[in-house]
Amino acid sequence: MRDTGKSTKREFGETTSEPSILTIEQWAKKIEHALEHPSAVGPIRNIRDDDDREFDAIFVGGGAAGRFGSAYLRAMGGRQLVVDRWPFLGGSCPHNACVPHHLFSECAAELMLARTFSGSLWFPDMNKRIVSIKEVVDLFRRGRTGPHAVMNYQSKEQLDIEFVLNTPARIIDANTVEAGGEIFRARTLVLALGAEPLRLDTPGSDLDGVHDYTTIVESLDREPGETVVVVGGGKTAVEYGCFFNATGRRVVMLVRHRLLDLIKDGDTRAYAIDRMREQGMEIIEGATVSAIIGDASRRVTKVIADTPSGQLQIDTDFVFQSLGERPRSRAAVEALGVAIDRKGAVVVDDHLRTSVPNVYAVGDLIGAPMEMFKARKSGTCAARVIMGEEVSYRPADWPDFLHTHYEVSWLGLGEEEARARYRNVVVLKMPPDNPNGLDIGLPASDRTMLYAMARPHMSGFQKLVLDGDARRVVGAHHVGYGAKDAFQYLNVMVRRGLTIDELGDMDELFLNPTHFIQLSRLRAGQRELRSL
Amino acid sequence: MRDTGKSTKREFGETTSEPSILTIEQWAKKIEHALEHPSAVGPIRNIRDDDDREFDAIFVGGGAAGRFGSAYLRAMGGRQLVVDRWPFLGGSCPHNACVPHHLFSECAAELMLARTFSGSLWFPDMNKRIVSIKEVVDLFRRGRTGPHAVMNYQSKEQLDIEFVLNTPARIIDANTVEAGGEIFRARTLVLALGAEPLRLDTPGSDLDGVHDYTTIVESLDREPGETVVVVGGGKTAVEYGCFFNATGRRVVMLVRHRLLDLIKDGDTRAYAIDRMREQGMEIIEGATVSAIIGDASRRVTKVIADTPSGQLQIDTDFVFQSLGERPRSRAAVEALGVAIDRKGAVVVDDHLRTSVPNVYAVGDLIGAPMEMFKARKSGTCAARVIMGEEVSYRPADWPDFLHTHYEVSWLGLGEEEARARYRNVVVLKMPPDNPNGLDIGLPASDRTMLYAMARPHMSGFQKLVLDGDARRVVGAHHVGYGAKDAFQYLNVMVRRGLTIDELGDMDELFLNPTHFIQLSRLRAGQRELRSL
Repeated sequence: MRDTGKSTKREFGETTSEPSILTIEQWAKKIEHALEHPSAVGPIRNIRDDDDREFDAIFVGGGAAGRFGSAYLRAMGGRQLVVDRWPFLGGSCPHNACVPHHLFSECAAELMLARTFSGSLWFPDMNKRIVSIKEVVDLFRRGRTGPHAVMNYQSKEQLDIEFVLNTPARIIDANTVEAGGEIFRARTLVLALGAEPLRLDTPGSDLDGVHDYTTIVESLDREPGETVVVVGGGKTAVEYGCFFNATGRRVVMLVRHRLLDLIKDGDTRAYAIDRMREQGMEIIEGATVSAIIGDASRRVTKVIADTPSGQLQIDTDFVFQSLGERPRSRAAVEALGVAIDRKGAVVVDDHLRTSVPNVYAVGDLIGAPMEMFKARKSGTCAARVIMGEEVSYRPADWPDFLHTHYEVSWLGLGEEEARARYRNVVVLKMPPDNPNGLDIGLPASDRTMLYAMARPHMSGFQKLVLDGDARRVVGAHHVGYGAKDAFQYLNVMVRRGLTIDELGDMDELFLNPTHFIQLSRLRAGQRELRSL
Repeated sequence: MRDTGKSTKREFGETTSEPSILTIEQWAKKIEHALEHPSAVGPIRNIRDDDDREFDAIFVGGGAAGRFGSAYLRAMGGRQLVVDRWPFLGGSCPHNACVPHHLFSECAAELMLARTFSGSLWFPDMNKRIVSIKEVVDLFRRGRTGPHAVMNYQSKEQLDIEFVLNTPARIIDANTVEAGGEIFRARTLVLALGAEPLRLDTPGSDLDGVHDYTTIVESLDREPGETVVVVGGGKTAVEYGCFFNATGRRVVMLVRHRLLDLIKDGDTRAYAIDRMREQGMEIIEGATVSAIIGDASRRVTKVIADTPSGQLQIDTDFVFQSLGERPRSRAAVEALGVAIDRKGAVVVDDHLRTSVPNVYAVGDLIGAPMEMFKARKSGTCAARVIMGEEVSYRPADWPDFLHTHYEVSWLGLGEEEARARYRNVVVLKMPPDNPNGLDIGLPASDRTMLYAMARPHMSGFQKLVLDGDARRVVGAHHVGYGAKDAFQYLNVMVRRGLTIDELGDMDELFLNPTHFIQLSRLRAGQRELRSL
């Protein structure tokens, strides 16, 4: 054990010392092997043993927060170490969270299209056809090591990150971590331990067939039957529920409070939910699961729920629970005594400092919003603070997004919120408020064209909300495809005071998914703005 | 005939005077009827006969330029009239240009996906399957009146536009137009007559089976055979060519100079073209059509072309020509003597003024770029000038876009252009430059997830180009899906001096189609930026 940042190298066999460069292909093979036989591969170590400098920080956890924090600190010229139990950097997102969810949501969108055009054009007859969930999960399992490999390659060869992977980190004190039998010391620790799905505490919640987003990827070993029960009403519940529905299954969503309460604009939420119901999803709000029943082999057979219309019993062999996330703070509390809040999140100040000197926390571990941008940005902010920059970070005014069978994007205020705040709210929407509004194929753009021509009411919905007096955009909402990326940039403009006049002066790439530019231009000539 | 803006109303039968409000559904029926029997319906007239004011402008042509100019002028409190030969406002775009092209491009994207996953998951067996082009065209023909109806409804009820439709405008002088037997006078004329496809002047170019983007929609009456010849190498040629290819046909593209020369970034162009070739498209550069041969019934049977490797004869019954557009300036030249350039475009100054006092010209009629944003913005700019505002318009630094089987978006400089201009060019790209780069499923986002997992090299390409010294973005390039909308907003930011540091500080909506935010954040910590 050394007191500097330099590690004491131990013997782990040949696999622990990396050759100078691994190709992406070599990384993919190594990661696959390690995932199958973690202990046979042992710690995967990339340490500059010729660098005598102390580590400025050890990132405990190599997910989005730890990896981006590491990259930033390194880019600034500092020295870091990141330790992760998995054989790859990038964390749960590419392994069993955001990436599979995007694959499943793509399948949901494609399957809704195929069902809508079932038996016509080139689409197969989808009538009563149940599509395999397991095949899609298996496709993901086979494909996921590619992105893992890129991230390891990028982290090592392009970002110069030092790491120990495929072995857990044991926190010893605020400056010391053990990993793979080696002791590492640093000026600071950055806790980036992530979060894990909350699970039902109902009787039967441990039965075979009760899944969450991690287990469906890691352990689904048989095809779910014809009925799926989804417990939850937030982003993940809806995203997976729509996928299950699109495969041709009956989906019952048991929602404790209100489905998709996070979509604040009433029209937008209604359009999204109407389309879910139209696809046959059964949504029961105010429902709580009272028990999950299994058979002799402990396989789920039934869900019992209390609903506003009485007790409901649903025969099913597959339950998907999505109740939110709990930060993985226990190890840090036990080792360091960091303060946590009542939800288990490590408490940090705007500089990502915990209650323990020299210990920082980032990512999902510090609580909501558990989104990628926050993980990455909190990681980089901690790195900058550690390297002496005067910066702070607290997420605010971010754009947001979820999948139904569609992509739903929003930023700023819903119309109702805006009306509560501004005297003169002006709304530009498509389709227009009109008895036939939904019968026409607008809005339309890439991936809603077939709908626009043949099932116009399925071609999407969008709304721009303005403070008419200031002529400023205060909210934007979109259900369709291809607008999510735009909301990232549009959100920054809105924060900076984007006006209807500036929007109308932009160059649209027609047919654009967000019709905001052209709708603005149709009204911008008005001194007294009117809705459209 | 009156000398004020007020028209002399004549008798046209009941259909010529609109009831106070037509619903969108009623508009759809009326437009359908008028398209089938134009003269039976007669002029469709929406004039405020109770308004005694002179017209500030008559827009001759109600496409994007005329309609948006009208809307803006009206929004400013002016009085306008717009006249169009078609029974709807909006022009060729929703009728036979951008909208059908988007439908065909969506089919191309969906068909490439279906062929890639042919016989697996829920996808049908597409092996050797030829999909009907005519069915898709017919789908469009049936569906297009919906968007027409919305635009008429919006123009009349929401934008208060005055119009005479379903009858040609005859220009009498710089202040006078005749339409449907009525004489209308105004302070100014705004010419918005659009453009039409250039046609081959080769022997046989008038044979049955030689199409362009208008005739394929308006007059395709039989299914094209197994081989399609596309003449041209620009946006439209490629967009339609990829669609024909995706239907399962052999497609030979005869390109006079260089395919997709408008994509300036070399890597981006190469990725897009490689994927086209991989789908089986045959691309012959340096080719000129010397003759098109027909049979006794004047149907195309063969194309003869001179190519760098000698004369080529291709058996086909379907030729799609896309050689660009010629402004429809003749009527205006004959009536008014407006000056035109050698390509037939009406010459205008930065205020959209032609060579004739009080006559303005907008849209495709004034030449390149013949893009929607320019049509609309030139229309609104003319309106503002006419209403006394000190504004000017000349398109510059716009983002651009086309479809292959993918969506290809770009803005600013290609890497090569940037290197010619800046000493220190930094490039952030995904996949990274690496022997295995294309073998991995990154970049990935909505609609490339199935590729990312199973055919990684098909999951797209993207590149951000920076002036490393100034830390400013100077170009962005994307092949994939869902980024086109973002380029509209990103382009404005780049024009305003967007830096890598600002990009890194944005909130990405992960998995975002453009990975620019996160790639920037991985490098932004560097004082001396390095490529990634």
